[in-house]
Amino acid sequence: MSALPKVLSKEELPLTEAKWITLKKIKWSDPEGKERIWESAERTTRGPSGIDAVAVFAILRSETDAFPVSTVIIEQYRPPIDKFVVELPAGLIDKGETAEQAAIRELEEETGYKAQKVLQSSPVLVADPGMTNANMKLVTVDVPFPDELGIFDQKLDAGEFITKRVVEISKLTQVFEEYERKGYVVDAKLSHFASGYEMALRAEQ
Amino acid sequence: MSALPKVLSKEELPLTEAKWITLKKIKWSDPEGKERIWESAERTTRGPSGIDAVAVFAILRSETDAFPVSTVIIEQYRPPIDKFVVELPAGLIDKGETAEQAAIRELEEETGYKAQKVLQSSPVLVADPGMTNANMKLVTVDVPFPDELGIFDQKLDAGEFITKRVVEISKLTQVFEEYERKGYVVDAKLSHFASGYEMALRAEQ
Repeated sequence: MSALPKVLSKEELPLTEAKWITLKKIKWSDPEGKERIWESAERTTRGPSGIDAVAVFAILRSETDAFPVSTVIIEQYRPPIDKFVVELPAGLIDKGETAEQAAIRELEEETGYKAQKVLQSSPVLVADPGMTNANMKLVTVDVPFPDELGIFDQKLDAGEFITKRVVEISKLTQVFEEYERKGYVVDAKLSHFASGYEMALRAEQ
Repeated sequence: MSALPKVLSKEELPLTEAKWITLKKIKWSDPEGKERIWESAERTTRGPSGIDAVAVFAILRSETDAFPVSTVIIEQYRPPIDKFVVELPAGLIDKGETAEQAAIRELEEETGYKAQKVLQSSPVLVADPGMTNANMKLVTVDVPFPDELGIFDQKLDAGEFITKRVVEISKLTQVFEEYERKGYVVDAKLSHFASGYEMALRAEQ
């Protein structure tokens, strides 16, 4: 049975009750040596890797060019936004995992695809550095197919509701316009990726 | 006189003392109708526009091709990260402003460049939807020059320490590698833009 997820209520969350995130007051010294205060939201879950999360850009490709080079994106209801959000497969890094291991694990759990190789692992990137210390890595992986695109089952935990979708990389911008028309929101990082892709194509023409 | 900015101390910030951000406990109903809890960090500054912030991608171009098509990025010490961060010009939307007006204002304040036209304004995008309701728009603007690139003074507030830098759009990835070597961190959205640009160039070859 499936219902539309929705926010039922929203209230202040005292620090003492919060499990996943917290607020920090940072005293810092500015370039003129003046003492100032900054407020920051932080995840409580960061492990010894020093990195909160990974996002995965999977390159799905056919060795016989049986389908256009594609990637896989996910749709997921996000309570802070109270809407369905379109994102790259992503997740928090577990204790004892590297960012690249987390990327391969999350990709398989959320989409069923097994990466054959890590093509590129970005440096640590910051999501919204005026407001939070949250950071992440973008890991690009190779998912080759001998011929046609394979379809595999996701390995979701109970309580995870994630829809995967394979999209041609060159059509991301177009696909996002469709999502926006039906009231979905696109993650800023993924949208910026598509904007960069689009701008390069226009520059080359 | 200029010193290296740095974090002096960091402590828990009770909700009652926080001015700029707060924590929320969201009760929501999942797709199976089950009641669940999610924790979210939120800015307290969101105005009637419903959008927290804008980032500006300025296209700096010469009508005589006197310089390669470029954009302007900023370097800024960010206390939550305790490092210098490389970002697009950006800022919060003031009350009574549209996102596009905020983009033009922030671009001029942070870089001195006056946009002549808004080329594109993205839908509302979400920065880190698993952790926060923070949202933003990416506004692309045209900054044409009759011939050579002009250089103008920033209009920073007291206490704002921002360095601007003009970069060829096709060299963003390369420039980011230099920044990383000297210990700077790149904003995830800007880095994803450059990754998308790079991937399109490789796909076209």
